[in-house]
Amino acid sequence: MIETKDFIFVISAPSGAGKSTLIAKLMKEFPVLSFSVSTTTRTIRPGEVDGKDYHFVTDKRFDELLAGDYFLEWANIHTSRYGTSMDSVKKVLLSGRELLLDVDVQGGEALREKIPDAHFVFIVPPSFKELESRLVNRQTESPETLAVRLKNAREEMKSASLYDFVIVNDDLEKAYQDLKTVYLACHMQANHVIPKLNYDS
Amino acid sequence: MIETKDFIFVISAPSGAGKSTLIAKLMKEFPVLSFSVSTTTRTIRPGEVDGKDYHFVTDKRFDELLAGDYFLEWANIHTSRYGTSMDSVKKVLLSGRELLLDVDVQGGEALREKIPDAHFVFIVPPSFKELESRLVNRQTESPETLAVRLKNAREEMKSASLYDFVIVNDDLEKAYQDLKTVYLACHMQANHVIPKLNYDS
Repeated sequence: MIETKDFIFVISAPSGAGKSTLIAKLMKEFPVLSFSVSTTTRTIRPGEVDGKDYHFVTDKRFDELLAGDYFLEWANIHTSRYGTSMDSVKKVLLSGRELLLDVDVQGGEALREKIPDAHFVFIVPPSFKELESRLVNRQTESPETLAVRLKNAREEMKSASLYDFVIVNDDLEKAYQDLKTVYLACHMQANHVIPKLNYDS
Repeated sequence: MIETKDFIFVISAPSGAGKSTLIAKLMKEFPVLSFSVSTTTRTIRPGEVDGKDYHFVTDKRFDELLAGDYFLEWANIHTSRYGTSMDSVKKVLLSGRELLLDVDVQGGEALREKIPDAHFVFIVPPSFKELESRLVNRQTESPETLAVRLKNAREEMKSASLYDFVIVNDDLEKAYQDLKTVYLACHMQANHVIPKLNYDS
């Protein structure tokens, strides 16, 4: 269903690695990159448009979709569920855009199996010490959730070897240049270039 | 024998793609890249040093080495043979340098099997028309050898899918930037980054 010329860039990271900032910068510089529209059980908020921001569904409907193997990956975030469907992925690709999937570590593992030809990038903090100080500086975590997050991050770091590329986010600007280099290089991968070659003449 | 942290960059191309110019530029900008010392049956020339420029051997000795599976790849060029040995490859890697292997299409195929963790780059001309005009402009080819070279190039182009990356050499400066991007991105591949991470603290 996914064609070899389709460009799918999957980015994942343990929390505190700086993923969101890096993704925002990349999408700003390369507007051809788009997110797909996720399906969620969360309540629609004022100003949000169903089918544009998210596909809003009931818990029951989400269960049905799950049962029908509708999602490439899905996650529980707080008290709601979010899923990425093949339909939403294809919509982006068929429009000629490139797809950026921003997923948690479990989602990355699921996508690795379902869309192996995508490009998988894992962003990591330079050290646990730095990760800890970043999470503390957010001031959004209680000591208990901080401990849980750090424990999870240690666990999640072990998934790095499942990814094609690993970017160490020590200095943000350096990490961004690395991410951009990887993004550009992925366009030179044989499966993307070969379909565009024309040697008939 | 090759460790995951070892960096091996294999570049191949049909003749006339501009490989040599691109390699020279890359090695100038990144002096950490080194060639290995090939083994050859060619006669030593004035000024050449055995063991530095090449390992010079007799035809009989080359046959013995071949029989002993000594070479990762080898080729017949004009009337002499040239081979790349694991010994010469390891010598470069153990010295802490990165290895650049400049090989013909057959050599690339052999290396793909023997050192799958290397990075494989294929350089192609933008079209056959352009390839033909480049070979004609060299003025070193008779009409007969030109026809053979073009036929071979068409054949060799089919190997592109065996490589990780394909770079189209239309404009030299653009192609060089692409090659450099690929070279830098390969350093972010998970197998190179993970051994350097230190999450003990």
